[in-house]
Amino acid sequence: MDKILIKNVTILTMNKAKEIIENGVVVISGKKIIDIGDSSLESKYKGFFIIDGNGGILMPGMVNCHSHVSMVAFRSLADDEADRLKKYILPLEKKLVDKDLVYNGARYGICEMLLSGVTTFCDMYYYEDEVARAASRLGIRAILGETIVNFPSPDSKEPYEGLAYCKEFIQNWHKNDLITPAVAPHAPYTNDSEHLIKAYNLSQKYKVPLTMHVAEMDYEYKKYKEEYNMTPVQYLDSLGILDKNFIGAHLVLVDDKDLDILEEREVGISHNIGANSKGAKGVAPAVKMYKRGMKIGLGTDGPMSGNTLDIMTQMPLVGKIHKLFNSDRTLLPAKDIVEMATIGGARALNMEHLIGTIEIGKRADLVILETESVNMQPIYDYYSTIVYSANPSNVDTVIVNGRIVVKSKKILHVDFNDIRRSLLDMKDKILSATKEI
Amino acid sequence: MDKILIKNVTILTMNKAKEIIENGVVVISGKKIIDIGDSSLESKYKGFFIIDGNGGILMPGMVNCHSHVSMVAFRSLADDEADRLKKYILPLEKKLVDKDLVYNGARYGICEMLLSGVTTFCDMYYYEDEVARAASRLGIRAILGETIVNFPSPDSKEPYEGLAYCKEFIQNWHKNDLITPAVAPHAPYTNDSEHLIKAYNLSQKYKVPLTMHVAEMDYEYKKYKEEYNMTPVQYLDSLGILDKNFIGAHLVLVDDKDLDILEEREVGISHNIGANSKGAKGVAPAVKMYKRGMKIGLGTDGPMSGNTLDIMTQMPLVGKIHKLFNSDRTLLPAKDIVEMATIGGARALNMEHLIGTIEIGKRADLVILETESVNMQPIYDYYSTIVYSANPSNVDTVIVNGRIVVKSKKILHVDFNDIRRSLLDMKDKILSATKEI
Repeated sequence: MDKILIKNVTILTMNKAKEIIENGVVVISGKKIIDIGDSSLESKYKGFFIIDGNGGILMPGMVNCHSHVSMVAFRSLADDEADRLKKYILPLEKKLVDKDLVYNGARYGICEMLLSGVTTFCDMYYYEDEVARAASRLGIRAILGETIVNFPSPDSKEPYEGLAYCKEFIQNWHKNDLITPAVAPHAPYTNDSEHLIKAYNLSQKYKVPLTMHVAEMDYEYKKYKEEYNMTPVQYLDSLGILDKNFIGAHLVLVDDKDLDILEEREVGISHNIGANSKGAKGVAPAVKMYKRGMKIGLGTDGPMSGNTLDIMTQMPLVGKIHKLFNSDRTLLPAKDIVEMATIGGARALNMEHLIGTIEIGKRADLVILETESVNMQPIYDYYSTIVYSANPSNVDTVIVNGRIVVKSKKILHVDFNDIRRSLLDMKDKILSATKEI
Repeated sequence: MDKILIKNVTILTMNKAKEIIENGVVVISGKKIIDIGDSSLESKYKGFFIIDGNGGILMPGMVNCHSHVSMVAFRSLADDEADRLKKYILPLEKKLVDKDLVYNGARYGICEMLLSGVTTFCDMYYYEDEVARAASRLGIRAILGETIVNFPSPDSKEPYEGLAYCKEFIQNWHKNDLITPAVAPHAPYTNDSEHLIKAYNLSQKYKVPLTMHVAEMDYEYKKYKEEYNMTPVQYLDSLGILDKNFIGAHLVLVDDKDLDILEEREVGISHNIGANSKGAKGVAPAVKMYKRGMKIGLGTDGPMSGNTLDIMTQMPLVGKIHKLFNSDRTLLPAKDIVEMATIGGARALNMEHLIGTIEIGKRADLVILETESVNMQPIYDYYSTIVYSANPSNVDTVIVNGRIVVKSKKILHVDFNDIRRSLLDMKDKILSATKEI
C-alpha cells in the first residue's frame, strides 16, 4: 500500500501561509506527499488506496521534542513528592532499569504516542538501543540519544561509559531511515566540562544531534552562578558546544542574554510546560522564544514527570499558562501553538526539510482528527478546536513515512494486548522496589 | 431497571477515610446506593442487573459547579481576543440567544457533560427554563439559575426582568427531583444593591440557591475599591447576602480578609481554573480555600471561556497551576483534586447529603472509567491516574440517580445525532452574526 489518497478532510497545511484547504485531498506515493489540492484531485489519481477522512481535520504529525519514553513503566508513581529525581527516579532506575524494561516501556510508550498523533519524538535514556529497536519495529520517526552521566548508570558500571555506548549506537543506527541516533549528556551538572566537550566532538564527528537537559533545576542554576558567575546556558556556550545541532530540553531558567546566545547559535528548544508546571520548576520564556523566531517545539518529558506522552495535552497548557503568566489573553493564539506542535518541533529537531507541514515533497507524516465526538463541535476555528477542545482520543488515523500505523483509533501491525501485558507484567516488581526505597 | 449491581471495579469511595475497595461491588436500588463491599456481595443480591466494570475505576459522579452550558453553540469563536465579554459575548447574545439556541445548546452540552462523567452541574443563563427542560429530558442533576442583569437581555426587554422570570421558574421546577431552580444575579457590577437584595430575598423566600460571578474581573475589583473601599466580597457581605446558600463563581481577586468572610458565611466556591487561566484573569487562592476546609468545587465556566464542559480537563490544570504558582510540587496531591471534583463540588452546592461520595444511602450518581486505553496504565495511584493521565474519553459508564445514562461511551435514551444536527444547524447564522459585530 504505497499509494494512498486521503479525501474528505480539512487540511491544515501549516505551511508559511498557513493555508487551510476545506474538502481537500492529499496524495501519497511511497514515503512522500506528491500532491495536495481540493476534491477535484481525486479523479486524477487512479488505483490509489482511499482514506475517507469523513469530514475530519488533516494535520501534520505532531513532534514530541523531549521524552524518556521507557519511563512509562513508572507512570503514576510518587507524583506529588518533593525532590523526586534524587529520591525516586535515580534509585528506581538503579534497581530496575534493564534491557527488558527499556524495550517494553518503549513499545508501550510509542503506541501511546502514535495513537495520539505523535509521529516523531526525541528521546534520551539508557539502553537506547532497545528504544531504537522498538521505534523501528513500530514505525515511528525518532531522534534517540544514549545518556551520558558522571555516575554509574543502569547500563554503565563506570561514569561516562555512555560515551562508548553512544559511539557504537550511532554506528548501528545511522543508516536507518526513521531513526536518527544522537548523543545525550544528561545535563551540565551531571557531566564535567571534559566529557561535555567529548560528547560534543562525538556528535560532530558523526554529524548527529546533541541533546541535553539545560537550565531546568534551581540547584543547577545556582551552581553555575556560584562557580562561574554564568548561567547554565552561558556556561555551555563558554565550552563552545552550543550550535544548530544542539537540542536543549526545558530551558526554564534563562535570561535575555541567554536568549541572545540560544538564538545566535540556532539551538533547538523543547518547551515542556506540562512537566515543568507539575514539577513547579517555573515557566520558560517560550513566548519570547517564539516571537524571536527561535526553533521552539513542544515536549512531554518522561511519563513520570509529564504522565502522558501526547502533544495534544501540552497545547492547551501552553496557551493557558503563558496567557496567565503574562496577564494577556491574546498572547500565543491557537494557531501559533499548533505551529509549535508541528513545524516548530520539526525545526527544533532540524527536520523541517522532511516533516512538520503538509507540502509536496515532504514525508507523509500525517494525522486525521475525527470531528464526530461531542467535544469537537462546533468548529469556528480549527486551531482553537485542536488546542482547546480536542484530546488524544480524537486521533483517528496516523501515517508515518507513508505507512498507515493507526486506523479507526487502533494501532496496526502489532499486537497491542501483548505490548500491554509486557508492561503490566513488570508492575509487581516495580511496586516492591518502590516500597524499599 | 431499578436494581443494579456493579462489580469488577476498584471503588474510590471518596468518603471521609478515602477508602478504596479493590474488586468491589456497589448495589443500587431505585435512586440510591444500598450496599457497598467486596466481591462476596454479589451472591447476596439476586436478580439485579449486572454491570461488569471490567477492572475499571468506579468513582462518584463529577460536579461542575459553574457553567453556561448553552454557550457551547459559540465554542471556538474568538478565543484569543481581548475584552471578549463586551466585544463578542454580549453582542452575540443580544443577536442570537433565543429559546431554541438555549435548548439546543443545553441538550448538546449536557450530552458532553454526561459522556465525560459530570452528573451534576450548576448553570446560569437566559431562558433557563429551556436548560431545565433539556436537563430533565436527559436525566442530569442540576442547579439552574435565571440570570438577572441591569440591562435588557435576550429574554428581558427591561433591566431586571430576570427577577420575575426567576420567580415563575422556581415555581415551575421546585418540585423536580433532579432540578433545583436558583436565583442568579449576573455579578455585583451588573446589578445595583437594591436588586441584589431583592434577588437574595427571592432565594430566601423559596429556599433556593443564589449563584453569582464574584471577584472575576479587574474592573469589578477596581470599582468596589474606588467607590466603597471594599473588595467585591466585602461589598456583597455589607449587603448581608452572603450565606451558606450562596454559590460564588471564580472568586479570583480575593484577599485573606475575604477568605475569612467566605469561610464564616459558609459560601460555596466554584474554582474555574481553566477559564481563569485562558482568560488571563489570575489564580484564585484555591489552596488556601481548600486547606481552610471551605466548600470548594471545580467549574468549567461557559464553553466560550473554558471550551469543554468536562471536569476531567480541569483536574490536571488545578494541580499544575497551583504547584507552579506556589513553587511547590507537593501542593494539592492528586487525591485532594479528585476530592474537589466530587464531594468538594457537592459541598459547594449544598448537596453533600445527597451526592459526592460512594456511601450507602446516597443517590447513585456514579462513573466507571475504563483502564484499557493506553493512557490509563500502569496504575500505581488511582488518584494520580485520574488527575494526570485520564481524559474524558476514558469514561465508559455513567449513572445518575440510579439510572444508566452512558454505557460503553455512548449516551442512552436520546438520539445524539439529532442533538448534534440541531446544534450544527445554527452554525451559519452564528457565523454571519459574528462577522457583523
